[in-house]
Amino acid sequence: MLSFDEYRSLINEHLTDFIPETDSKAAVLRESMEYSLRVGGKRLRPVLLLASCDFAGGDIMQALPYACSLEYIHTYSLIHDDLPAMDDDDLRRGKPTNHTVYGEDIAILAGDGLLNTAAEVMTGEVVRHAGEPEIMARHARAAHEIMSRAGIRGMIGGQTADVKGEYMEASADLVRYIELHKTADLITAPVRAGLMLAGADDSMLNDFTSYALNTGVAFQVLDDILDFEGDEELIGKKVGKDQDLGKCNYVCVHGLDAAKQELHSLTGEAKRSLEKYGNDAVFFTSLADQLEIRKY
Amino acid sequence: MLSFDEYRSLINEHLTDFIPETDSKAAVLRESMEYSLRVGGKRLRPVLLLASCDFAGGDIMQALPYACSLEYIHTYSLIHDDLPAMDDDDLRRGKPTNHTVYGEDIAILAGDGLLNTAAEVMTGEVVRHAGEPEIMARHARAAHEIMSRAGIRGMIGGQTADVKGEYMEASADLVRYIELHKTADLITAPVRAGLMLAGADDSMLNDFTSYALNTGVAFQVLDDILDFEGDEELIGKKVGKDQDLGKCNYVCVHGLDAAKQELHSLTGEAKRSLEKYGNDAVFFTSLADQLEIRKY
Repeated sequence: MLSFDEYRSLINEHLTDFIPETDSKAAVLRESMEYSLRVGGKRLRPVLLLASCDFAGGDIMQALPYACSLEYIHTYSLIHDDLPAMDDDDLRRGKPTNHTVYGEDIAILAGDGLLNTAAEVMTGEVVRHAGEPEIMARHARAAHEIMSRAGIRGMIGGQTADVKGEYMEASADLVRYIELHKTADLITAPVRAGLMLAGADDSMLNDFTSYALNTGVAFQVLDDILDFEGDEELIGKKVGKDQDLGKCNYVCVHGLDAAKQELHSLTGEAKRSLEKYGNDAVFFTSLADQLEIRKY
Repeated sequence: MLSFDEYRSLINEHLTDFIPETDSKAAVLRESMEYSLRVGGKRLRPVLLLASCDFAGGDIMQALPYACSLEYIHTYSLIHDDLPAMDDDDLRRGKPTNHTVYGEDIAILAGDGLLNTAAEVMTGEVVRHAGEPEIMARHARAAHEIMSRAGIRGMIGGQTADVKGEYMEASADLVRYIELHKTADLITAPVRAGLMLAGADDSMLNDFTSYALNTGVAFQVLDDILDFEGDEELIGKKVGKDQDLGKCNYVCVHGLDAAKQELHSLTGEAKRSLEKYGNDAVFFTSLADQLEIRKY
């Protein structure tokens, strides 16, 4: 296995390789897609996909188009989320958001373009393996896993509950739904898809699903904590937005102390899911530890 | 083969069957997706998919999820196109547009949800045929064809040129790019995907691609004519919008008479592409004739 930074370098190096050629008449579309892809980010999701595939003995170069597709999906969701009609953010990772640079119309189309490109790239990979039925089936499963967790039962459903949360009664139930779907689904998808590409068995899939769901929920709980007491300069965008927008998050429902306890308990649960793999799974257990103490 | 109305009934009957179950916390998302799907429309694209599959001896019940996915993609593109930041339309097919009913935030998410659902449904169908390598490969090709023509080389690229056309020099070249990609690609995709699902050979694929591209460009030329001299009540939305928005279309570049000649010549070219199939292809040739004289 490689280190987090080595996986990330691989992704950054190839991030735009899979985007299809576009005509000069649509040059601004591609430019705005690449702008948001290049603006930074931890690359947590695509790294998880490569690492999971690698862990289970798969070929990470075959997994790379899926890892990049995952980042296209994550990036489109941020572009649309930042729009004036949604969270209305001018800054993302300390840089102007897509619509403040390219206008709302192009930002909408760039988001659509990134989501569509993800599906186009992944189905293209499935077609490319038409001569190897077993491999083809693995690729199809991975593509379907990603599209399902990104979809209306997954991330888009979570986004809807988040956006409409201000009109619903804030409850532990609603907060958990948002954490699971807005956030944890897109952290679970790459872990499962990476394993699927490598042909991992169901027992490994189950263990890593538990790891990823717990890590994903912990990620959102910490985002809620950082929105409450984080450092604006480190985070690269305004804090306190959830409260301003009347959004329902873990801190406002359970309080700050409970949020910190929950973060720690979820991180422990994530690591315990991989206990049986011992030191082989150290990439994943130490990642969970690092994510628990991140400041942005 | 069935009649246009019979194919359309099949689609209307099953249109929402393939959308995954959603939690009550995201109920408004599903409601707004279904609202725009049910608001009407000719179902031209999904009918073309079923008819092409049927023509080439395929199983139209296997093609149905693809036909519905095509309609999800077409519908998402209309929802996003109607947004205030895009064409800013209050009416579509004589009914309030998605964002005027559900708000811009939900309209953005409903569009994302429909696009994602299309990819989720189609990749799910590929996975479902994992035991039959040849069939699975056909399904993967069809899914990839649809995602490619819907994407940044296809419809989204065309939309971008259309939206940004007001800042470019109006030219025959730009108009043709918009016609081909904004419109003809999403008429060609179902024809090719339907044939692919049925396992048609390259010669038939080429003939029908020519038919579909010509029919698709003709469709957009007539839309441009109708935007100039159509009946608002029949069309169900304001006419003259292209001129108001300074958009580049066939009529403003070539004039109304040339547009009508072009419409007739493209329709003839479409029909000639299928000459060798004689009366067997009457469904498609008579459809081209009907589309030439449509009023909305």
